[in-house]
Amino acid sequence: MRWSSALIPTLKETPADAVAPSHILLLRAGMIRQLGAGAYTYLPLGLRVLHKAEAIVRQEMDAAGAVELLMPALQPVELWKESGRFETFGDLLMKLTISGGHHMALGPTHEEVITDLVRDLVRSYKQLPITLYQIQTKFRDEPRPRFGILRTREFLMKDAYSFDADVDQLGRSYDAMYEAYCRTFDRCGLPYVVVDAESGPIGGDASHEFMVPCSTGEDKVIQCPSCNYAANQEKAEVGESAAAPQRADSPPYEAKPTPGKRTIRDVCAFLKVDEATSGKLLVFLADGKPVAVLLRGDHEANEAKVRRAFGAAVLAPADPDSIQKATGAPMGFLGPIAIKIPMIVDRAVTAMETIVVGGNEVDVHLTGVVPGRDFPIDRALDLRNADEGDPCPRCGAAMVVKAGLEIGHVFKLGTKYSKAMGANYQDEKGTEIPLIMGCYGIGVNRIVAAAVEACHDANGIVWPLNLAPYQAAVVPLQVNNKAVMDAAEEIERRLTEAGVDVILDDRDQRPGFKFKDIDLIGIPLRIVVGERGLKDGTIEMKWRHESESKNVPLETAGDAALAELKAARDRLAADCQVRREQRAGAKSS
Amino acid sequence: MRWSSALIPTLKETPADAVAPSHILLLRAGMIRQLGAGAYTYLPLGLRVLHKAEAIVRQEMDAAGAVELLMPALQPVELWKESGRFETFGDLLMKLTISGGHHMALGPTHEEVITDLVRDLVRSYKQLPITLYQIQTKFRDEPRPRFGILRTREFLMKDAYSFDADVDQLGRSYDAMYEAYCRTFDRCGLPYVVVDAESGPIGGDASHEFMVPCSTGEDKVIQCPSCNYAANQEKAEVGESAAAPQRADSPPYEAKPTPGKRTIRDVCAFLKVDEATSGKLLVFLADGKPVAVLLRGDHEANEAKVRRAFGAAVLAPADPDSIQKATGAPMGFLGPIAIKIPMIVDRAVTAMETIVVGGNEVDVHLTGVVPGRDFPIDRALDLRNADEGDPCPRCGAAMVVKAGLEIGHVFKLGTKYSKAMGANYQDEKGTEIPLIMGCYGIGVNRIVAAAVEACHDANGIVWPLNLAPYQAAVVPLQVNNKAVMDAAEEIERRLTEAGVDVILDDRDQRPGFKFKDIDLIGIPLRIVVGERGLKDGTIEMKWRHESESKNVPLETAGDAALAELKAARDRLAADCQVRREQRAGAKSS
Repeated sequence: MRWSSALIPTLKETPADAVAPSHILLLRAGMIRQLGAGAYTYLPLGLRVLHKAEAIVRQEMDAAGAVELLMPALQPVELWKESGRFETFGDLLMKLTISGGHHMALGPTHEEVITDLVRDLVRSYKQLPITLYQIQTKFRDEPRPRFGILRTREFLMKDAYSFDADVDQLGRSYDAMYEAYCRTFDRCGLPYVVVDAESGPIGGDASHEFMVPCSTGEDKVIQCPSCNYAANQEKAEVGESAAAPQRADSPPYEAKPTPGKRTIRDVCAFLKVDEATSGKLLVFLADGKPVAVLLRGDHEANEAKVRRAFGAAVLAPADPDSIQKATGAPMGFLGPIAIKIPMIVDRAVTAMETIVVGGNEVDVHLTGVVPGRDFPIDRALDLRNADEGDPCPRCGAAMVVKAGLEIGHVFKLGTKYSKAMGANYQDEKGTEIPLIMGCYGIGVNRIVAAAVEACHDANGIVWPLNLAPYQAAVVPLQVNNKAVMDAAEEIERRLTEAGVDVILDDRDQRPGFKFKDIDLIGIPLRIVVGERGLKDGTIEMKWRHESESKNVPLETAGDAALAELKAARDRLAADCQVRREQRAGAKSS
Repeated sequence: MRWSSALIPTLKETPADAVAPSHILLLRAGMIRQLGAGAYTYLPLGLRVLHKAEAIVRQEMDAAGAVELLMPALQPVELWKESGRFETFGDLLMKLTISGGHHMALGPTHEEVITDLVRDLVRSYKQLPITLYQIQTKFRDEPRPRFGILRTREFLMKDAYSFDADVDQLGRSYDAMYEAYCRTFDRCGLPYVVVDAESGPIGGDASHEFMVPCSTGEDKVIQCPSCNYAANQEKAEVGESAAAPQRADSPPYEAKPTPGKRTIRDVCAFLKVDEATSGKLLVFLADGKPVAVLLRGDHEANEAKVRRAFGAAVLAPADPDSIQKATGAPMGFLGPIAIKIPMIVDRAVTAMETIVVGGNEVDVHLTGVVPGRDFPIDRALDLRNADEGDPCPRCGAAMVVKAGLEIGHVFKLGTKYSKAMGANYQDEKGTEIPLIMGCYGIGVNRIVAAAVEACHDANGIVWPLNLAPYQAAVVPLQVNNKAVMDAAEEIERRLTEAGVDVILDDRDQRPGFKFKDIDLIGIPLRIVVGERGLKDGTIEMKWRHESESKNVPLETAGDAALAELKAARDRLAADCQVRREQRAGAKSS
């Protein structure tokens, strides 16, 4: 490919409104252009990267035994009503009415459609297990699209769905997808961590997320630097804190006037105490019944943990009226003493000698309250979001928080959809049994964005070899010098014949201008042909990620470049193999 | 791939409601399943075919120098208003409102989006010519989806757009796409004809359609068996007919009462004359002004021809009120005698000695009217749709009509979009000049359907080699016999290693059952391994399109199969090359 024919509109300036490195660099490198909010055109270079990511995903899905199909984007909303998700998905679901008055949705995901298909086509245990996947454009009415191609209203997703006869089979299908995801991201050259995750509104009972740590990431990943425990902040457990010493001589608590001070921040500022010495009592409706939790004032409740602690199916924050009615106390001044509804205390509270809490009457807080003395601690559980410095649930070491960008997600769905939609198989005896499902998603565009987030420097993108739009750029310095162009074209031809994607920068521009662009678009191997080198019979070769170039004899330039590329590919393959063996070892041990 | 893992739900029965061969066979072969009206899931086999067609299209686009990008499906309707097509596209355009109250369309085509992109990125003559393309899912709110995947609301399309500095450059860009289309369809093994076409509401001034003749085709193709002239019925010209002899002794015309007879059929039945001896006068509004055309009663007016005959930009049938006002005559009884508005006569009328026409008053028709005597023939032009038996415009031979299925379409758009949307380039002198555009579409799904329409027999699909989901099927007859399975797997392995897509039918079923399925899904080469053959050291090989099988030594079975496949590929490549040379010869001569 000639640069002049490839439509690569690089930009010198950082585009206004772009904050995320991937957004800035993909725009500057001429790989994407915005059409509207949350809608981007992939220009030729960007599309090449997207296609490379897609091909790797497809190869690893096929290698894992998943079978590809393609479902429509337009779905009858009836299917969403059948699964019960028409309500829960809410406004994120794009809806339209088509001719004949049919109400349709644009699929943000395809659990309903695949379950509808499989209930029709898969009827016997003999057809199980089966994992089906597609690579397809999804739609989501994001209220605030942002970060370039990271959060858009239309995106390319690989979604896979496994159907199994029993839980053991599901475990094997899940493990096969988990391993395929690891291989996919290894081959893409992405630094990722796999974290325990909440399965969220999609339902189910086990889930892992694949996260690329980067500043743009919208998820928080909690990691233990000691034992490698890692989880999404929503899911991460917090280990036990040492209990506070019981002091018999603690003075009794005191009531303090706190006129109009309803928030932890205001109360603590007013009383001149650290927020970490305060407590906050939160009231929820657990399956409709009011319940309370007591947390340290600077901690955040984790609703999934609270829901599980109360054994509830649905949990929602209580409204002020319900709170007043249930506790008799006004919002902003709630406290644990003589509380009339079931209360569970977060573990961190047990580590506090004394605590500042609400007085259960307007404009009153209590100081010097001793947990366990002034109010009973029937149950102390892990109820809050893990945070920086919290003890690891496995080894107790202080954990750290990193921002993470989700690129993949695997779920064990169980029978949520098969039961709702009547997708059964017959076992050996002819009994109808709901299919056991798993679902597995990869954001293909996010692979592209995550690679840029993780792999760039001050000069531009540094593409991992397997994602690079072109693996090599041949740069003739004097495009009007026939000897230079002939030599450059000969190298290009040699590489192309060997199957290397190569671009020839045929622009009549100064070397520095061309080098800057090639660094910006992140081509791994740069091969420079110039008049001066040709006099000595040499050309120059340089890797994007290295600072030094080397001279190579012109005669063997093509072979030398191929050897360099092969060595790089071999190193990457060896790395992937090592990681694979490490996973196998970790699993079998 | 093992058959048992591939999800191939073949059907014995012809599905209800399916009429078109491609619809019936793709359903029966387990390649597609309907989700809703105009929405189909591509099951694994069907998707493999779709991907093969897509890959051929992409390769030929790349080879022709077109550059791939990918635009969003969701488009702001503002762009459609800017081009003026928001109105003209009407209800076919799917519309929805997304968060923030933005009005969006789901792209049925991308002239607006690409013009918006290019007006931003292409500013200089130095960047021209450039042809951009994408392979992308399109949406169209078809009021009556039908024929399976032939007319759906969501489909995969390759759409390309050329941008040129002048008409000569456009000619070369257009020719390159035309040739790429021929190569694409040749490689797909489709029997197609290229026809002159109306450019239709999309605009522009030259257009060709690529049609596959088949009974399901919704277009009518007019062909001359003598000189190979071919055109869409809408566009086809009709040659001159011999003028009727002028007879001096014709009696004067007579007025006949025709009470309540307003249609040609009713009038001719009532008067007991052949419709081919009658005339019909039609009134149109040409740029708002009433005009008339006189056609033979059994002919259909071609509005594009009428529009051009009157030099109008817009033509529409006149309503009864306008007709009465313009002619003073009631609808149903209009005639050419003493007509007060401009009238053009279709050429066929000049070949009629006498003609039955309306009397310009209620319940009256005239018989024995002599064209040229009783009313003047100022202009006799080609104004009607060509039909079976009409004279060829080039050689005068009688033309034939065939049903055709459109698989591709190339247009010269000119400056319709660039002028409407302000997409200019600067020439050498810095003058702003509107870009000259062409657009080029291939329905990728239609390649699949057209191949089935053109290539099937009573037993099922007979896939062209390059589109077949698998090129070879290996069929072990006794799947529980280890020697049989080992031999079958060895052949499968050999073929797979050589890059052949092969499926192994591992189902524990009777041979006839398996053979029927393999014929139905249309796998080109069948390789059968059975106990009996193994005793003699042979396996059986059979092409789908041949009736005889042949025995091959087991030892060299893999090589023999590869040699057969290579020979078939070579034959196809040679055929493609011959056609290419024929086209080059026809062009240069």
